[in-house]
Amino acid sequence: MRVALLAHEQFPDRAKTAVGVLRYSDHDIVAVLDRDSAGDTVHDYLPDVQDAPIVDEMADVPDCDALVIGIAPIGGGFDDSWRPDVRTAIERRCDVIAGLHYLLSEDDEFCELAAEYDVSLRDVREPPEDLTVAEGTAGEIDAHVVLTVGTDCSTGKMTTSYELRDAARERGLDAAVAPTGQTGIMVSGWGIAIDRTIADFAAGATERLVKEADAEDVIIVEGQGALTHPAYSGVTTAILHGAQPDSLVLCHEAGRETVGSYDSFELPDPATYANLYEQVTEPVSPATVDAGVLNTYDLSVDEADAALSEYEAELGVPVTDPVRYDAGDILDSILD
Amino acid sequence: MRVALLAHEQFPDRAKTAVGVLRYSDHDIVAVLDRDSAGDTVHDYLPDVQDAPIVDEMADVPDCDALVIGIAPIGGGFDDSWRPDVRTAIERRCDVIAGLHYLLSEDDEFCELAAEYDVSLRDVREPPEDLTVAEGTAGEIDAHVVLTVGTDCSTGKMTTSYELRDAARERGLDAAVAPTGQTGIMVSGWGIAIDRTIADFAAGATERLVKEADAEDVIIVEGQGALTHPAYSGVTTAILHGAQPDSLVLCHEAGRETVGSYDSFELPDPATYANLYEQVTEPVSPATVDAGVLNTYDLSVDEADAALSEYEAELGVPVTDPVRYDAGDILDSILD
Repeated sequence: MRVALLAHEQFPDRAKTAVGVLRYSDHDIVAVLDRDSAGDTVHDYLPDVQDAPIVDEMADVPDCDALVIGIAPIGGGFDDSWRPDVRTAIERRCDVIAGLHYLLSEDDEFCELAAEYDVSLRDVREPPEDLTVAEGTAGEIDAHVVLTVGTDCSTGKMTTSYELRDAARERGLDAAVAPTGQTGIMVSGWGIAIDRTIADFAAGATERLVKEADAEDVIIVEGQGALTHPAYSGVTTAILHGAQPDSLVLCHEAGRETVGSYDSFELPDPATYANLYEQVTEPVSPATVDAGVLNTYDLSVDEADAALSEYEAELGVPVTDPVRYDAGDILDSILD
Repeated sequence: MRVALLAHEQFPDRAKTAVGVLRYSDHDIVAVLDRDSAGDTVHDYLPDVQDAPIVDEMADVPDCDALVIGIAPIGGGFDDSWRPDVRTAIERRCDVIAGLHYLLSEDDEFCELAAEYDVSLRDVREPPEDLTVAEGTAGEIDAHVVLTVGTDCSTGKMTTSYELRDAARERGLDAAVAPTGQTGIMVSGWGIAIDRTIADFAAGATERLVKEADAEDVIIVEGQGALTHPAYSGVTTAILHGAQPDSLVLCHEAGRETVGSYDSFELPDPATYANLYEQVTEPVSPATVDAGVLNTYDLSVDEADAALSEYEAELGVPVTDPVRYDAGDILDSILD
């Protein structure tokens, strides 16, 4: 699919979705829309992903199949300065894909235009309407199911999922990610935002994702939240039991000691956390933490290596930082 | 509030909601509607709850404030044979309260009638629309917060919650239940069906319930599901962390060894389960399993006493069957 990415005034540092799509999707990115840096190219900022021109508006974009809203303002609103670009995209018969709380499919102007030009408006945060409770049968599939879990939110579960997929593919394995959040859904072009499902159906939605993931060898389920997070643990646990994984990968941010945005709650140490994940998983699907991932973004090389050694000693399994180093380093431990 | 309970053809054995309201609510029950046993009285079937006449239809009911739909067919549909009773109730200016998947508030005929007669149609399964993520602050309230947890669904968490409330009140304590399921909501007249909330907001909804529960001494939060249930563990965990309890009461059904309706999954033994609840709770709100409840409904007296002794030895804390014996037996252990 040929895709344009809208990221006005926020590319690349505050455009997590756009960067995720550039880095991990199979789409052909024909342009990034950012009026602040029009005339530059993606490689001026991100030399290690596919290149594309950065343009001022939709009228400057080459032929494509879809416009993806690649940024999410606080609160998930739709910025009216994007309206002309969305309008132009529809008039050029491009689908429009967004992960906002504001639903394109409930916007009168866009709905009318989309009907007129016969294009789709896809709001990927909206779960399907036919979800049901889990049957407890995700474990029946043949592929090795890996779930990325974390000690907290924003520890790298989505990134780790795609890095593991790419490492597995490099070895000739048939691998896919089962996306559970909006960026993953944008990247893979399918998935369910588990945190938006009805609580009773969250495990069932995860089970469906595992069964629909199209890969014979390895399915990596993108985890969410953390098992003892004060607000999001329900989503985490539903994914844990719905996915029935064979392996867990524990993602942690170096130096983080309290729950992000919930500073009064201390994080259990990673070894304790790993053990807890294993105990809670065991009655449904015996899985072990077979590898660890440490986000060392804020550290120097020496500090990162020291932190990785310490993390590895704590967990007793291979660890890596898949952005700084290579997810291939932990793949053997996961697939053994 | 003066209430009539609709339980056509199902009272009392298949009318869990009607029986719960009779047993635990503060409402004055003026009649039960059951066309199969009209002419009998509630005491003919349930001698230990408040008595009321059983009548054929709404026209035979004495003056009252509300009609409660006290049964739930498989699938949660509305049986059209109930329509004349609901119509008559509205015309007599009674509110109508239901916990069905089918929403009274989306039924055109009932909506029109309700507007004409100025009565409310309350669908208690529908969560409020202004839910948010948890702040992690339920632990700040002064009352002792007790959460009933289980080794499985249908182990007696709702019943235990109300029996504990009544035992606390008998000691002169100000106690209330925070209802998280439809029967509890019918009984208490407020609450949120946590399993119907958006997964991200389930802990936040529980937090709100704890804060809104109107009791100075003891708040008993009605738990749902079980921590390692293949389908419902997400709801369980969200309630566990959202409620930030001081004490847990572990409910188990004597002899149950596999998950109900998920027979391929073995239940962890109760002591293991108690330990797991404590470990998962600890990072958010250190709480211990201070008592156990065993459902011994299917056992003889001798068998029940033997099962209770065994359960007590396993858990190492006081246990009871609050239906066969008395929830007061475990209250000291919980409140100490």
